[in-house]
Amino acid sequence: MSHKILVAQGGGPTAVINQSLVGVALEARRHAEISSVYGALHGVRGIVDDNLVDLGQETVANLEAVAATPAAALGSTRDKPDRKYCQEIFKVLKAHDVDTFFYIGGNDSSDTLRIVADEAKKAGRPLRAVHIPKTIDNDLMGFDHVPGYPSAARFVAQAFMGANLDNLALKGVYCAVVMGRHAGFLTAAAAMARQYPGDGPHLIYLPERVFVVDKFLAEVKAAFERHGRCIVAASEGIHDEKGEAIITKLMGRTEKDAHGNVQLSGTGALADLLCEEVKNKLGIKRVRGDTFGYLQRSFAGCVSDVDQREAREVGEKAVQYAMNGQVGSVAIRRVGDYAVDYPLVALETVAGKTRVMEDAFIAEGGADVTRAFGDYLRPLLGSDLPAIAHLRGASVEKAGVLIGDST
Amino acid sequence: MSHKILVAQGGGPTAVINQSLVGVALEARRHAEISSVYGALHGVRGIVDDNLVDLGQETVANLEAVAATPAAALGSTRDKPDRKYCQEIFKVLKAHDVDTFFYIGGNDSSDTLRIVADEAKKAGRPLRAVHIPKTIDNDLMGFDHVPGYPSAARFVAQAFMGANLDNLALKGVYCAVVMGRHAGFLTAAAAMARQYPGDGPHLIYLPERVFVVDKFLAEVKAAFERHGRCIVAASEGIHDEKGEAIITKLMGRTEKDAHGNVQLSGTGALADLLCEEVKNKLGIKRVRGDTFGYLQRSFAGCVSDVDQREAREVGEKAVQYAMNGQVGSVAIRRVGDYAVDYPLVALETVAGKTRVMEDAFIAEGGADVTRAFGDYLRPLLGSDLPAIAHLRGASVEKAGVLIGDST
Repeated sequence: MSHKILVAQGGGPTAVINQSLVGVALEARRHAEISSVYGALHGVRGIVDDNLVDLGQETVANLEAVAATPAAALGSTRDKPDRKYCQEIFKVLKAHDVDTFFYIGGNDSSDTLRIVADEAKKAGRPLRAVHIPKTIDNDLMGFDHVPGYPSAARFVAQAFMGANLDNLALKGVYCAVVMGRHAGFLTAAAAMARQYPGDGPHLIYLPERVFVVDKFLAEVKAAFERHGRCIVAASEGIHDEKGEAIITKLMGRTEKDAHGNVQLSGTGALADLLCEEVKNKLGIKRVRGDTFGYLQRSFAGCVSDVDQREAREVGEKAVQYAMNGQVGSVAIRRVGDYAVDYPLVALETVAGKTRVMEDAFIAEGGADVTRAFGDYLRPLLGSDLPAIAHLRGASVEKAGVLIGDST
Repeated sequence: MSHKILVAQGGGPTAVINQSLVGVALEARRHAEISSVYGALHGVRGIVDDNLVDLGQETVANLEAVAATPAAALGSTRDKPDRKYCQEIFKVLKAHDVDTFFYIGGNDSSDTLRIVADEAKKAGRPLRAVHIPKTIDNDLMGFDHVPGYPSAARFVAQAFMGANLDNLALKGVYCAVVMGRHAGFLTAAAAMARQYPGDGPHLIYLPERVFVVDKFLAEVKAAFERHGRCIVAASEGIHDEKGEAIITKLMGRTEKDAHGNVQLSGTGALADLLCEEVKNKLGIKRVRGDTFGYLQRSFAGCVSDVDQREAREVGEKAVQYAMNGQVGSVAIRRVGDYAVDYPLVALETVAGKTRVMEDAFIAEGGADVTRAFGDYLRPLLGSDLPAIAHLRGASVEKAGVLIGDST
């Protein structure tokens, strides 16, 4: 039997999502039973708009170059299809005789696949729907980790390595805000920047724990007193005990105007607001903030080779499973220290669910991660991480000059 | 005659400032006439506080590891010494019998050296004062370029490569704010991200040109209509025709309250405000902003090997010049395409002056750079820049399904 397959990419781009795409395209070439390999432009939107490209016409050299390129080469979409939208997806797939659909994305994409497969079943035209996971948030249920996360985590670790050194050179408080609204995995990666005693980040705030502004200020004060400086990693999703975002809370405190509230809830605001709190309440002079923003998911030239390999493999395995008549989500399971395999799990395991950080990964007190988290993340970061070094700095005996002495 | 030498680092850290430090320390070991190599902790502040370390006790292996580490291993300072401060510097140097002083820094550091040398001369104890240049702003007079700039430029180029791809996948307007208050060299580096036709940045705004908000909006609109998206690189120093910073201007427009003005002039505000303008005035839905912040000068693992080598060489040459009795600032002159040499220029050439981008580097219309700028910057970025690739994307003939058709 001959098969036409279609692949699409959805949700936020990652550094390795194209590895999975190319994994599908190249693995398909090994299967004589696959007659066409289509790509949909801009995810499910490209399917309903019938904007497809023929991946069979791509050269191997260009596919390999695309695999090494960050973001989503087919284009992506934020569309979250409802049942009607899924019916339209199915209609286009049917019109093109596509019987196998690979969707590279997060838990929403997995849900879309579930519904489209359901529609196909009802229409008596079974569809092989395989979900290929990706997300920098690492928040898919049933996975040890998700492709895309290790590279973003590496970016965050390298950013904090540099920030720690910069802050050692010019001491003060530094707060950086990291992506991840519900799951703290990416923010937690900041911990991997530590190498020497006293290295930052000294405090890590995750959305899995309630953020109390006064506790934060007390912890910054203590770290500053101890180290003469303080580096903070904060998730964009930090919130109070009622679930209210800290960004909204602090904005309200400095700016009574609701209009300002709306106007300024832009990307850089949380870091600035945390810095203002530290400046105003602790009287520390040099306080700086950064928001890593889109760099952490798209920066060209910061990638984990482990992540690249695994993202490629989930794409290859997806085709193998589908050609074997199996459907579901291609998960990553850790075996040994460190190796992985790729079991297929039911779409329902992943669809619409969000994994957050396990308690075992979060330190007591809630402002740091545990050694277990370090053990979990370290092998994912890949090879050739930058190494840093400090001078040993043997003191020279003071000459005993009295400053102000005119001799 | 035996010499005691002292080296210090001042101003904002860079990715290669430690190369220069290690260049001094290792070159000094070749000179039998140098009896001691001291480092001052936190720049001139460490001199007046008499906080010195003995670099003669460092191992070669650790020095080489420090050279590859970003930021300032001796620590830095923002102190800008006046004449009294310089007198105190001289006093400590004298007490330690230091007769040669290397200061790695920008134009302020060069001015400090000038005054300290002056004091020494008046006291009848000549000081060999050599300025070793560094700045990510590339704004020193008398230089082809300045160590530290090429690595920061590489970061900006890689960031825009990724941002361009991310924005191709999920289309919209993206504005990123780059460091450089008076000189646009670093912002201009965004242009190096372009590879394919239509690649961003589509608009580049430099502090060398007046920024007119309405012109900006019209240019974003035109680019968006042409490409279906628009990537903007803006210098943090963009200002109106009276020199008023655009951040203050836009802040005033959304927030009448002067208090809010002060409160929110944090690092992320300009990008957010530019995005708000685009959203509100052009009605474009997906508008995102980033502020590269400290990452662009300290990110661990993004460095130009050309920059590393040159930063090392200016340190080595500084010691050679000093031991030959010559003082001044070690400049970089471009010879051929591409090679450099390191002439010594007078401290007065550099001290207290600021270079900005030449008109020949700025495109007509003021919202882009010229090919001449690309020719200038390209060899500085170093080897193994990430390459990107797009799918060629041969279209599949539409199946002619009518969406909404119930068949």
